Amino acid sequence: MGSQDIFFMFQAVNEARKAQRLGEVPIGAVLVHQGQVLTRQHNQKEKTQDPTSHAEILCLREASSKLGSWRLVEATLYVTVEPCVMCVGALLQARVGRVVFGCLEPKMGGLRSVYSLNDDHRLHHQFIIEEGLLEDQCQSLMQNFFKLKRQQSCVIEKFKSTLP
Amino acid sequence: MGSQDIFFMFQAVNEARKAQRLGEVPIGAVLVHQGQVLTRQHNQKEKTQDPTSHAEILCLREASSKLGSWRLVEATLYVTVEPCVMCVGALLQARVGRVVFGCLEPKMGGLRSVYSLNDDHRLHHQFIIEEGLLEDQCQSLMQNFFKLKRQQSCVIEKFKSTLP
Repeated sequence: MGSQDIFFMFQAVNEARKAQRLGEVPIGAVLVHQGQVLTRQHNQKEKTQDPTSHAEILCLREASSKLGSWRLVEATLYVTVEPCVMCVGALLQARVGRVVFGCLEPKMGGLRSVYSLNDDHRLHHQFIIEEGLLEDQCQSLMQNFFKLKRQQSCVIEKFKSTLP
Repeated sequence: MGSQDIFFMFQAVNEARKAQRLGEVPIGAVLVHQGQVLTRQHNQKEKTQDPTSHAEILCLREASSKLGSWRLVEATLYVTVEPCVMCVGALLQARVGRVVFGCLEPKMGGLRSVYSLNDDHRLHHQFIIEEGLLEDQCQSLMQNFFKLKRQQSCVIEKFKSTLP
């Protein structure tokens, strides 16, 4: 991975921070095609109430709309967290060329943690994977978000227990 | 499965026929919530050039928009063909209650054929699966579509071989 990769992943981290400020799971993604950024997205599941509004899916939809093609073979997707099963399926459907991600997603990850879908030759497409870029920053965002969520849940539970 | 299931699956088959007429892979889906049809969709990948425009994803997006919630726990999705890995991932993300499908999809199927994602307790949700409803009709649509595609490819190859 080179300095260009770091540059694009920084933009994905910025997207993740936007998600965090909006109360969304802090995951950001950037889709680059022939060296140009086509789209930058972050998770919007709560805002849109659309179960498919993950940063990766939003990038694929926007990029294919801009290019007028569902085939994104020359695209690289930078995403702060290992994509889930749904998103890996979508990346395979779009024939994406390369995926660079920051930290692992132990509960739903479809590239390393729970499944290794990209290594399965039955699925008729494989992309290049690079992992661990800006890993600490990507992971900190996730850990802080879920720590805060747990603390908020505790406060709500304590408050409920005081009600008659 | 009861007569209501057959009734809804007929509607999904009608959607698949619409896709066929438009030159799309003939897969249709209907999403039912508390006994009411919320949306009927068919594959639109070629028309929209969006790699995620499978009938199932379009149903989930439309239904969650109508209900104002990404959680579709009381929904049943009727789909003519076993969903692919991307679509099973999306059905799990949406916490769908039940999925009824017609025929198997041996190349990309994520419920039986290539993966059994719904049986994997690590993915934190399971829905009820019913399979084989109107199987012959669903399968015929797919087989005829791909047979025609192969014939068209043969004609094009023969034509190319006559060029100087």
